[in-house]
Amino acid sequence: MSRDICIFQSFLEDKHRVQIEAAAAETGFTPHFFTEDQFEEAKTCLQECACEVLYAQSPNLLRTAPASLNWYCASSAGVDYYCADPTLFANPGCILTNSNCYGVTISEHLLMVTLMLLRRMPEYQATVRAHDWGTPLPIRSIRDGAFTILGTGDIGTTYAKCLRAMGAAKITGLNRSGKSPDAAYDEVVPIAQLDQVLPAAQVLMLALPNTPETAGILSKERIALLPRSAYVINVGRGAAIDQEAMIDALNSGAIAGAALDVMVPEPLPEDHPLWSAKNLILTPHISGNLTLAYTRDTNVDMFCEDLRNYAAGKPLQYQVDRKRGY
Amino acid sequence: MSRDICIFQSFLEDKHRVQIEAAAAETGFTPHFFTEDQFEEAKTCLQECACEVLYAQSPNLLRTAPASLNWYCASSAGVDYYCADPTLFANPGCILTNSNCYGVTISEHLLMVTLMLLRRMPEYQATVRAHDWGTPLPIRSIRDGAFTILGTGDIGTTYAKCLRAMGAAKITGLNRSGKSPDAAYDEVVPIAQLDQVLPAAQVLMLALPNTPETAGILSKERIALLPRSAYVINVGRGAAIDQEAMIDALNSGAIAGAALDVMVPEPLPEDHPLWSAKNLILTPHISGNLTLAYTRDTNVDMFCEDLRNYAAGKPLQYQVDRKRGY
Repeated sequence: MSRDICIFQSFLEDKHRVQIEAAAAETGFTPHFFTEDQFEEAKTCLQECACEVLYAQSPNLLRTAPASLNWYCASSAGVDYYCADPTLFANPGCILTNSNCYGVTISEHLLMVTLMLLRRMPEYQATVRAHDWGTPLPIRSIRDGAFTILGTGDIGTTYAKCLRAMGAAKITGLNRSGKSPDAAYDEVVPIAQLDQVLPAAQVLMLALPNTPETAGILSKERIALLPRSAYVINVGRGAAIDQEAMIDALNSGAIAGAALDVMVPEPLPEDHPLWSAKNLILTPHISGNLTLAYTRDTNVDMFCEDLRNYAAGKPLQYQVDRKRGY
Repeated sequence: MSRDICIFQSFLEDKHRVQIEAAAAETGFTPHFFTEDQFEEAKTCLQECACEVLYAQSPNLLRTAPASLNWYCASSAGVDYYCADPTLFANPGCILTNSNCYGVTISEHLLMVTLMLLRRMPEYQATVRAHDWGTPLPIRSIRDGAFTILGTGDIGTTYAKCLRAMGAAKITGLNRSGKSPDAAYDEVVPIAQLDQVLPAAQVLMLALPNTPETAGILSKERIALLPRSAYVINVGRGAAIDQEAMIDALNSGAIAGAALDVMVPEPLPEDHPLWSAKNLILTPHISGNLTLAYTRDTNVDMFCEDLRNYAAGKPLQYQVDRKRGY
């Protein structure tokens, strides 16, 4: 009996297919490739081959997979959709892995929007669009700046390393344990101390998985704790922020600005008030998209690495705790 | 007879005045402070005290200074205005120094616009202004990117160090000698080889002083040597680029984009075609303004350092060759 892998991805280049084929041959698997416009074909294949492994980013396809499916590799970093809904898995013991390959591209996005906020680009760009030379505005710098990072995973820590390299004066991380994962942080405190940290936050960056514990964590009350000079950046999940309170804080000048790459809902409806909030850099969930060669290559590398672990019966490197949610 | 310093600056804070007063007292000088709206008062003072030292950024005030003036400290990095016009100096032997304290703030600007170009923010921001979610565009990264830096002084080299810290794959510098000033560069070649370098340039950054040799260096012919994927960034002087050819290259898609912080003329007239060139990030000469605390502090530190050198009869640390122009 053959052991089968379905690969349902549109980002793969020829070299990635060759790489997956080689890893499959080496480990005794047969790969079946589908692009994301071949949903019905992929669904049929999953059933017909009693598929064991699926590499995709599609809760809808996962829902159609038979109980033979024993490992679902999500090409995304966030797996909240998968963890929140156990009915997606016909096999309750199905292993879930994610792909934490977005640190590089998201940290470049983060550095860009951090500098755009500190250097007041939303205001300068409005002036330039009006063909107005304007006058210099007071700006701030990464060098000598203080940064508060909520979520010290791959994304938060890659950002912390960049800030450190740019001469940041103070980098505070927050996570559940309060344990520091990397020397790039000056200090790491437990998320339970968030209320004590917020009144001094200058740049607050959120890179949290979406779990019941993180939903709404930046509440209206906590937004009110931020100083007027604070900037807020979110690349985790939109649900972490009370979005209505954030829009009010921006429009009233209660905080200095924000850069949101994630929001609720996505895509944002055309008439949503977030589009035109003051001093907001809004991007359509692009910070970690799969258009960067490095991100694509690493995504495939991680899948092949864990395919070898899986075939050898070893623990998977990127396994997610489906109950905990990350 | 007293020895006098006139300080004609609007950026000074109280602590900077205290610092200059202390350095003056230590070296036997009397300081006279003026803000930039006190032109007539400063001019009168220069004459009446037969002023020896002037710390300013004003060719117009320098022109009024008597032959007693023996050292003019420009608070700018660029000194092209001063070198191009010897009639500004009543004393032909007057020492000229500049203030190379802009590396930090300009390199943060450079990193910001580099990422905005590579990540196609001009296009994304246009979509967002139209309340349109759009679709992900292929982007590029600093990590794995190649960078060509024309001018390896304080600004170019601070930028090179940032790129290196962000994982850039290849950094090529160009300067007159072809000698590398810093290990951040993979290679440094003589500017005479510019034509050989341009066809492979991905991001070309210009940070050149304005001299007869650099004026028009990025000519129409050289812009035509750039690949269609190239981005051009200029923070030196606008005169380095054939601006009309640059506008044509942007609007026709002959290059991928540009970020210009300097241009000709400044301020740009309201009806100038540069305001609306395609894929251009235009900023109103703000990359090195004096609103950043670090920049202001360093500017004053450098003046005080050279004041001690001057009083001790030692060579000045930041002296410019008035004939060479930098």
